[in-house]
Amino acid sequence: MINAAFATLPEPPYYSVIFSSLRTEGDHQYGRMADRMVELAAEQPGYLGVESVRGADGFGITVSYWHSLDDIAAWKSQAEHRIAQETGKAQWYLHYEVRIARVERAYAKPAAA
Amino acid sequence: MINAAFATLPEPPYYSVIFSSLRTEGDHQYGRMADRMVELAAEQPGYLGVESVRGADGFGITVSYWHSLDDIAAWKSQAEHRIAQETGKAQWYLHYEVRIARVERAYAKPAAA
Repeated sequence: MINAAFATLPEPPYYSVIFSSLRTEGDHQYGRMADRMVELAAEQPGYLGVESVRGADGFGITVSYWHSLDDIAAWKSQAEHRIAQETGKAQWYLHYEVRIARVERAYAKPAAA
Repeated sequence: MINAAFATLPEPPYYSVIFSSLRTEGDHQYGRMADRMVELAAEQPGYLGVESVRGADGFGITVSYWHSLDDIAAWKSQAEHRIAQETGKAQWYLHYEVRIARVERAYAKPAAA
């Protein structure tokens, strides 16, 4: 890989969770939680990969990739992740949008990356 | 909207183009092209919205939303956009990944945003 930020994924189809969010001011232990959630997600059944960026203005996009919708539902209901979701609503995010989508086609450049 | 960075979208289903990329060093008129492509995309049939972030390390994610796969194909082959794609391969991006996905479910917090 050119950069570890890219997810290495299988051939489609698979599923994605497109999470766009606007952070509140201040860390409120967000950084620690975010690292932990990346680590925890990677241990879940059906996890394929994640790509994530946050801009200096606090707006960010994280796309996680999963084998199936059931895997996404299981991750959403995972106990420690649920606590993070609740704290996210209360403290970390001014607003967020979640879109769950079935990846049907994928390509890259350079193609052999 | 809390922030103009969020796209306001209809109820699913609709389609998304998840474009993750790593920029080369230097602008090479990238900023001008990026602004122009956002403007041009918004004029295309079937365009629903876009969300985009780039981090300080040059890694970015742009997700554009479309009514149908045909609309995405038409945008890919739009003349001025094709020139931008070629210049992107040659000058602006070290690497990129494109994933085309059908959004099946969406929710937000606060829900009424």
